[in-house]
Amino acid sequence: MSSILKGIAASSGIAIAKAYRLVEPDLSFKETKVDNPGQEVERFKEAISVSMSELEAIRDRAKVELGDDKAAIFEAHLLVLNDPELLGPIEEKIKQDSVNAEAALKETADMFVSMFEQMDNEYMKERAADIRDVTKRVLSHLLDVKVLNPSMISEEVIVISEDLTPSDTAQLNREFVKGFTTNIGGRTSHSAIMARSMEIPAVVGTKEATQEIQNGDLVIVDGLNGEVHVNPTEEVVEQYKDEARRFADQKAEWAKLVDEKSVTRDGHHVELAANIGTPADLEGVRNNGGEGVGLYRTEFLYMGRNELPTEEEQFESYKAVLEGMDGKPVVVRTLDIGGDKELPYLDLPHEMNPFLGFRAIRLCLEEQDLFEVQLRALLRASVYGNLKIMFPMISNLVEFRKAKGILLDVKEQLIQEGVNVSDDIEVGIMVEIPSTAVLADQFAKEVDFFSIGTNDLIQYTMAADRMNERVSYLYQPYNPAILRLIKMVIDASHKEGKWTGMCGEMAGDEIAIPILLGLGLDEFSMSATSILPARTQLKNLSKSDMETLAQEVLTLSTNEEVISTVEKAIKL
Amino acid sequence: MSSILKGIAASSGIAIAKAYRLVEPDLSFKETKVDNPGQEVERFKEAISVSMSELEAIRDRAKVELGDDKAAIFEAHLLVLNDPELLGPIEEKIKQDSVNAEAALKETADMFVSMFEQMDNEYMKERAADIRDVTKRVLSHLLDVKVLNPSMISEEVIVISEDLTPSDTAQLNREFVKGFTTNIGGRTSHSAIMARSMEIPAVVGTKEATQEIQNGDLVIVDGLNGEVHVNPTEEVVEQYKDEARRFADQKAEWAKLVDEKSVTRDGHHVELAANIGTPADLEGVRNNGGEGVGLYRTEFLYMGRNELPTEEEQFESYKAVLEGMDGKPVVVRTLDIGGDKELPYLDLPHEMNPFLGFRAIRLCLEEQDLFEVQLRALLRASVYGNLKIMFPMISNLVEFRKAKGILLDVKEQLIQEGVNVSDDIEVGIMVEIPSTAVLADQFAKEVDFFSIGTNDLIQYTMAADRMNERVSYLYQPYNPAILRLIKMVIDASHKEGKWTGMCGEMAGDEIAIPILLGLGLDEFSMSATSILPARTQLKNLSKSDMETLAQEVLTLSTNEEVISTVEKAIKL
Repeated sequence: MSSILKGIAASSGIAIAKAYRLVEPDLSFKETKVDNPGQEVERFKEAISVSMSELEAIRDRAKVELGDDKAAIFEAHLLVLNDPELLGPIEEKIKQDSVNAEAALKETADMFVSMFEQMDNEYMKERAADIRDVTKRVLSHLLDVKVLNPSMISEEVIVISEDLTPSDTAQLNREFVKGFTTNIGGRTSHSAIMARSMEIPAVVGTKEATQEIQNGDLVIVDGLNGEVHVNPTEEVVEQYKDEARRFADQKAEWAKLVDEKSVTRDGHHVELAANIGTPADLEGVRNNGGEGVGLYRTEFLYMGRNELPTEEEQFESYKAVLEGMDGKPVVVRTLDIGGDKELPYLDLPHEMNPFLGFRAIRLCLEEQDLFEVQLRALLRASVYGNLKIMFPMISNLVEFRKAKGILLDVKEQLIQEGVNVSDDIEVGIMVEIPSTAVLADQFAKEVDFFSIGTNDLIQYTMAADRMNERVSYLYQPYNPAILRLIKMVIDASHKEGKWTGMCGEMAGDEIAIPILLGLGLDEFSMSATSILPARTQLKNLSKSDMETLAQEVLTLSTNEEVISTVEKAIKL
Repeated sequence: MSSILKGIAASSGIAIAKAYRLVEPDLSFKETKVDNPGQEVERFKEAISVSMSELEAIRDRAKVELGDDKAAIFEAHLLVLNDPELLGPIEEKIKQDSVNAEAALKETADMFVSMFEQMDNEYMKERAADIRDVTKRVLSHLLDVKVLNPSMISEEVIVISEDLTPSDTAQLNREFVKGFTTNIGGRTSHSAIMARSMEIPAVVGTKEATQEIQNGDLVIVDGLNGEVHVNPTEEVVEQYKDEARRFADQKAEWAKLVDEKSVTRDGHHVELAANIGTPADLEGVRNNGGEGVGLYRTEFLYMGRNELPTEEEQFESYKAVLEGMDGKPVVVRTLDIGGDKELPYLDLPHEMNPFLGFRAIRLCLEEQDLFEVQLRALLRASVYGNLKIMFPMISNLVEFRKAKGILLDVKEQLIQEGVNVSDDIEVGIMVEIPSTAVLADQFAKEVDFFSIGTNDLIQYTMAADRMNERVSYLYQPYNPAILRLIKMVIDASHKEGKWTGMCGEMAGDEIAIPILLGLGLDEFSMSATSILPARTQLKNLSKSDMETLAQEVLTLSTNEEVISTVEKAIKL
């Protein structure tokens, strides 16, 4: 039976492939008494042996396809399965207590995990993680449940999941994942942002993708219209193949502008930059003609791992991005963690309203050690390109002064140590909290630049969680209140001879671009794939006409009025 | 041993009395097998019999002290304990399964509760609540744990608790509760607001009051300095008795202004009004010389009960308040539920960020039936006084237009039905969301008045949950960004010949009052106990001097600078 799921078009394009369900397997079980413990021990040994052959196969393929580094993880898992100090007590327990193998395995493994985790030793903590992973694998064989190895996907697939966290996405093999669809999320959720950065079509917020789609179903992800077709008819597949070709043609048209500057019809230049998460995203920035990086989200360095990244690891990433951009500006945002982005190893408190909580600069100013390591890595990398640093979630000047003070102290220290540091690093802030927009004139005297983060600015200004479907209608980018705050920020920066960028989703939006141009925005930073369409749009706009349009929309009273006025003006 | 706990001074004054711990008893137990079921049945019957004598005593006292209405609740509980349809199956279960009485009671009672709850019948739902209450009481006797009857407190006490919800507070007997202290909360938490409305001293956020204080300990609540003394020395008690007398003297001094208007040194009149939660608060408003009610929080009508209040119940409350204020203005806020205020019987969805979620007007516009009942009750009551209606959490003009549209429809309907409705009701909005403050000029064309809700406005503008201790330093009422938003609102209203009030905590604050006077605020609404101190302060201020001061603070860059500038100007 074919069916269609509706969702939110999160990343454009068409993908057609078989479904791969990335859903956590259910490994729950009950502790029971067994009549024949000897037989149960045999069942346990059998599960160990199946797990070992499976791991050996994975290790061998990983060596070839992913390199020795990744293969070493599975080597470590194999060592666990050979360890008599773990296996012995489990078999003992089955025999002595006459319990099922699942219970004996879980209890013994948990004991070792908690013992290793309590040790103040990175090596031992990694062993704890290994035991946890291996336990899952053996349990899955005991329970006859299939375990997932997303990093080993080796054919073209559409990934189906409840949600995709940044660490899930990091594990996906870009070569084979042709698109994805999730149950939850919206256009500004992290899964959507990742999809655009990976340049793969995605539809999010389908509510029931994981219920409706089975492994191996043929799936079309229509990232242009926000539809997911499950087991479509041959006719629909053919229509979509045509659609995919048309989209490819349009992309080819856009691609002609890849080496051009972004200039309006009346000769005004603005900078079109890209938002990135990892050095791997640079290829997309170059392919799409990015004139810089307007937002480098450093938190991905901290995610999907078991401990903080070292100064050296961070330095290498920052250096790679700066060198990769070849002297073009790179705006690096310091750690923006907390809120919906958690780091298990930091043990952050549970909060009632995490979006209004202890996150980003608030956390960095309190966990100063962690902040200093990042700043050292950034400053050391500064000599390899055109680095600009910005602090996220600044709500008042005291915070900015503290953060900049720490940066200057770290710089001084590095110079004392004889390390080369660029003398030409601009230091700015994200404007994503209403108080900062309202007080932009005061901030403009002290910062080198502003970058407006519209995703958060809109949610705080409208007091509506952008991830909450019941109030998502209040995520109103064109509400005149938002536009007025943006104007305050741009005007304040220009008055002090500074510049303003925007790195929220709005910067790449075709209704917003004319207004932002008219308000005088200097830099537009967006998903790399939005750059060429935006450049195409800008070529056809006149800055002076858009100034008139911007003045007009500021006097309107609702989001809807602004949309229809802009649509009329630019004949969309 | 005497000890001192530090907390936040939430309601001024000194209280000295014995501690009463309002802490949920631990009624957890394990299901076990019993050797002698017959003996277990006897133990169960004994617990039933003790519970009955206890309930009879409570019922008799309730009849005398609280009236027949409250006593009827306990009568219903007694009926449950006499019901063979409930007791029979429990005894059966003990005998057949050889389980302990606790388990048999719990399982059987839960079955009846869920059966009754599923019936679409109010009477049966109330029976379910009765069974739940009675089960707790019998369980407490089986487990030998003391059960609480806060409504039956009959001597002077200081209540000690983790937190006090509005429904907890509603149950307290005002005659005997002399003060309270809680582990959590801040100056703007609901427990603090309630304490001020009840005019009893309170210290909140002590973190460990429930751990450190035992029933019967002698406790001093110092609501002036935010301290709680546990088992103080005789000397300390004497000092505090002096302090209490001094505070009483100061109150007597303030009381001389009770019948005066609130006029500045240079003859400018502002309105000092009170925030109330129930008609019972009116006595405090009159005793403290309130010139009106600036905020009537109607949600207390909806809380601490099992179903929505009827139109008639609401009408009676609104009428009582309007008549009680004798023609003085009464601003009623329509239902502000959701966020941290839940109604179990509405079954609201769990949200990740409730403060940014589906609450207040957002809920009322979707649950229109519920909203219409409240509006009908309000309009019917309008002929009994000077009613003004305001909608909470308005973030854009579309919402206001919808809400006002519903109000006009309901009015039209009532007129059709031949009901008298005042023709002179002002309709305004709370300004507590940044977008609304920024767009106040557009709103001012359509609303009759604004009332600035600073508690929420500050938390959204600074993107900091005011209940979250880790970011509470960002609750900055004097941040120039907040003051500028307030100015935008006041200026916009005056330009259209409308007025602006303020009903957040800030309106009664001695640093804020000079600034707000200077900015031109028309109405200050606060806890009743703050009115006379505010009137005293205003008498000594000159409006024209404060206008100069307000202009100055708007150009400052931090909260701290504003505080020190105001302190210097008014010589605090």
